[in-house]
Amino acid sequence: MAMCKRRGFIYPAFEIYGGAAGFYDYGSLGSLMKKNIEDLWRRFYLSHENFAEVSCPTVVPETVLKASGHVDRFTDFISKCQKCKSSYRAHHLLKGVVDDPSSLAPNAIREIFRSGKIKCPKCGEEFTDVSTFHLMFETRIGESSRGFLRPETAQGIFINFSNMYRYFREKLPFGIVQIGRGYRNEISPRQGMIRLREFNMAEAEFFFDDPDCREFEKIKNEKLSLFPREGSEISLKAQEIYDKNMIKNQFQIYFMVMTKNFLIKAGIDPERLRFRQHYVQEMAHYAKDCWDAEALLDEWVEIAGIADRGTYDLEAHIQSSGNDFSVERKRKQIKIKNEKLEEIEKKFGKEKAGDIIKKVESLEFDEDADLDEIEIEKIILKKEFFDQYMVKKGKFVPSVIEPSYGIDRILYSILFHNFKQGVLALPPGIAPIKFGVFPLLRKKELKAKARGIFDTLNREGIKCYYDEGGSIGRRYARMDEIGTPFCITVDHQTLEDNSITIRFRDAKDQIRVNIKDMAEKARKLLA
Amino acid sequence: MAMCKRRGFIYPAFEIYGGAAGFYDYGSLGSLMKKNIEDLWRRFYLSHENFAEVSCPTVVPETVLKASGHVDRFTDFISKCQKCKSSYRAHHLLKGVVDDPSSLAPNAIREIFRSGKIKCPKCGEEFTDVSTFHLMFETRIGESSRGFLRPETAQGIFINFSNMYRYFREKLPFGIVQIGRGYRNEISPRQGMIRLREFNMAEAEFFFDDPDCREFEKIKNEKLSLFPREGSEISLKAQEIYDKNMIKNQFQIYFMVMTKNFLIKAGIDPERLRFRQHYVQEMAHYAKDCWDAEALLDEWVEIAGIADRGTYDLEAHIQSSGNDFSVERKRKQIKIKNEKLEEIEKKFGKEKAGDIIKKVESLEFDEDADLDEIEIEKIILKKEFFDQYMVKKGKFVPSVIEPSYGIDRILYSILFHNFKQGVLALPPGIAPIKFGVFPLLRKKELKAKARGIFDTLNREGIKCYYDEGGSIGRRYARMDEIGTPFCITVDHQTLEDNSITIRFRDAKDQIRVNIKDMAEKARKLLA
Repeated sequence: MAMCKRRGFIYPAFEIYGGAAGFYDYGSLGSLMKKNIEDLWRRFYLSHENFAEVSCPTVVPETVLKASGHVDRFTDFISKCQKCKSSYRAHHLLKGVVDDPSSLAPNAIREIFRSGKIKCPKCGEEFTDVSTFHLMFETRIGESSRGFLRPETAQGIFINFSNMYRYFREKLPFGIVQIGRGYRNEISPRQGMIRLREFNMAEAEFFFDDPDCREFEKIKNEKLSLFPREGSEISLKAQEIYDKNMIKNQFQIYFMVMTKNFLIKAGIDPERLRFRQHYVQEMAHYAKDCWDAEALLDEWVEIAGIADRGTYDLEAHIQSSGNDFSVERKRKQIKIKNEKLEEIEKKFGKEKAGDIIKKVESLEFDEDADLDEIEIEKIILKKEFFDQYMVKKGKFVPSVIEPSYGIDRILYSILFHNFKQGVLALPPGIAPIKFGVFPLLRKKELKAKARGIFDTLNREGIKCYYDEGGSIGRRYARMDEIGTPFCITVDHQTLEDNSITIRFRDAKDQIRVNIKDMAEKARKLLA
Repeated sequence: MAMCKRRGFIYPAFEIYGGAAGFYDYGSLGSLMKKNIEDLWRRFYLSHENFAEVSCPTVVPETVLKASGHVDRFTDFISKCQKCKSSYRAHHLLKGVVDDPSSLAPNAIREIFRSGKIKCPKCGEEFTDVSTFHLMFETRIGESSRGFLRPETAQGIFINFSNMYRYFREKLPFGIVQIGRGYRNEISPRQGMIRLREFNMAEAEFFFDDPDCREFEKIKNEKLSLFPREGSEISLKAQEIYDKNMIKNQFQIYFMVMTKNFLIKAGIDPERLRFRQHYVQEMAHYAKDCWDAEALLDEWVEIAGIADRGTYDLEAHIQSSGNDFSVERKRKQIKIKNEKLEEIEKKFGKEKAGDIIKKVESLEFDEDADLDEIEIEKIILKKEFFDQYMVKKGKFVPSVIEPSYGIDRILYSILFHNFKQGVLALPPGIAPIKFGVFPLLRKKELKAKARGIFDTLNREGIKCYYDEGGSIGRRYARMDEIGTPFCITVDHQTLEDNSITIRFRDAKDQIRVNIKDMAEKARKLLA
């Protein structure tokens, strides 16, 4: 954290006014890094043709969050010391007293507090009870309407379901993502960047009917390190997880694999990453099952969660708004062309032909299936033989898998996992500055060359940092500390043959490159 | 607006619950377009070496906004109908009754209302008075601290001044930008995307000592269309504006020119863009002078503002926080080396030499001036002759020019200026989708080729839209309507010679390109 502040990644917010717990500012480097993480995340999700992004308000009228269950159930247990008046999250106080505070039911928590086992960390007084504390920031819209700051970006997506269904031309499955601020009015946040009152989140709501994932084949051999609710830690392939029925929904497994790959690409150490299943008591009110991606910092910390929200949210909004979010289940069927009947009968005999036709006409296909030919009992029917038509199979409410990411925690964990001995070994794509650009000495000609390189790379959208201050070793060290993967130095040889050196942060070696090839080389190094 | 909604740019928020005035959702296309505008804006600002971005909380403790003057002065005049209880912004009611409601002092506004000239638009009742309405959304932080949603991103920057000054190694001038949400709890917003309660803003705070802008030379011949507080509309070059003393600060003019260039590049029609100077009564409490960039829609609408905030904000926070934001004015001076004195005396004679030395040693230079040689009275002194040192010239509080942009209004104005006869003629850089990709017919081979092209461009980060539905003319029309500048069609010839057609939205003509050159061609078209 000291490094974060000194180097301009993150600052405690409102510090000149004594600060406010749970709020942070991103400085120049932090803000660049945050944007890189968000853009990488977008690449993972939005490269899928059936994903789109939306951006909704953070201020939300009460009706919406009443319907979603947040007004009534987005609470935490709070304990207030009768003597010194300090307030604490009950779960925070239970750590060290019970093994897994998250697994406890509300009554069990109350009982422990009433038993007098828990004492105030500040003054030593015994706590006597817990109460619930509402975690949404409340406000008024206009003169008198009650509103809240959104506790998640998800609700903005759910209530837009019809708009998005229309955008995707009424075809499931599809996913909607949103990146933006979320809010949680924590009682008394004490854990730096981990427990924030205002945070940056990236969420995806994936709507589907059929829980079989077409892309599952591609990821079935990828391994995940799992920590299930019952049993101990285990590393399994996606296919094994599905076969063992540990996770019933293929999309949930698919997004867990995607989450793993995204996090590792962003710089999370694979050895310090696992997926932990929520306890039943721990799950949010809308979840049927939830697996958290956890990173090991001083302790295991949740940095993403992949939840099966089922139809909870859409149903809740149907109920409260009267809006119909159910959609038609459409299937494709075929009908043998009349003019082809004779030909088929001639070939197979009347009885067998009748049998084949009956069977093939009862088949159902995906609504967007490409039916160039159909194989049935080893007979191939070319598409000249049949017409295709759509049938409606009744209405239903789509189910939802939600991968949700805490951008601040991810950023902090990446810094934590990559800072060693004065070097921040960030992946080049995530590093805030890509190239340090230095003239070896403060000579006019060297400086002009270095400036020219800086401008060229800048124009290409490659973020550079120009530095002419101090020894070259000191300048390298400054770049190492903020994670810059490459440094370009202009020296005397540059003036002779137009070549510069590129120094690599991790290998600490150098190569010489001609200036005219440099932009190309830079792009390759960053690809 | 109908087009915006139908095509998935913008939706009124919370619509299934009856909506909430002043809140909008960005759909898929709107969200892509918004990101393109923000990234273009970033390119304009962050390509300057002395600019950096920060990202601060939207929830702000009361102390900060008390200090900045917002708690006391961020208000609007409200008028409430005694009969039907509707509330209105007083300025909205004054339109059509007086020429320029913005120019009126508070007392003049009260007088007009008391005179009974203004009637309720809903029920016809006479209004009798106006009162002030506070425009910040209020909330509580933790259990009881008062907080507000930020009315501007600027305050997060001001209170971080010391951190950012350190980040720039204590050298002025520098600029800090922030892109994010701002909030204004409007009384009863009735103007769609123009008067929002939650909006996206991009702001830059530029801190300086010396008001002479080094880059002014480069923009001195650029023209601005001005509408000054006094006098009529006039088009003038930057240099003329400065020479005529119409705007005293070179940086303010510089950022107005930059704003013009950014807006035109983003798609604002130059013929419907002007800069209007605020009336004295109209200016925010912190401003010494302010020029709004206005776009002509149904009426002239403010889409950006370039304000001279002077030292108001830093002084206010110094006063309230006790933190010292003043900085040292540093100048470089030189001293002739002792061992060179003799040489100079020999050359010019003792008296003249003494005179030259005295003069040259009293000169002051910028702290980062490159002093390879100094010319004085046509004599050139090479740097071997002198030592350089820094002198402190006393402390001061930096001044601020603030260019501030309403991203939503800009986006809406771009749509407004570019939608003609079913075609949305967006600049390629701003268009949400860059390429439509179509197989001419729904044939397996054509579809496979088209999918391949879609994937290739997607991997290059070029946003495409794959479409195989309907006639090719209809697909072109669909792309025209959402502003897609180029469409690629795979046809029978593709299968023979691997070439595809690229059709241009604006010229409506086509070229044939080989698939292997396509990615390169695409990049060029978008550059």
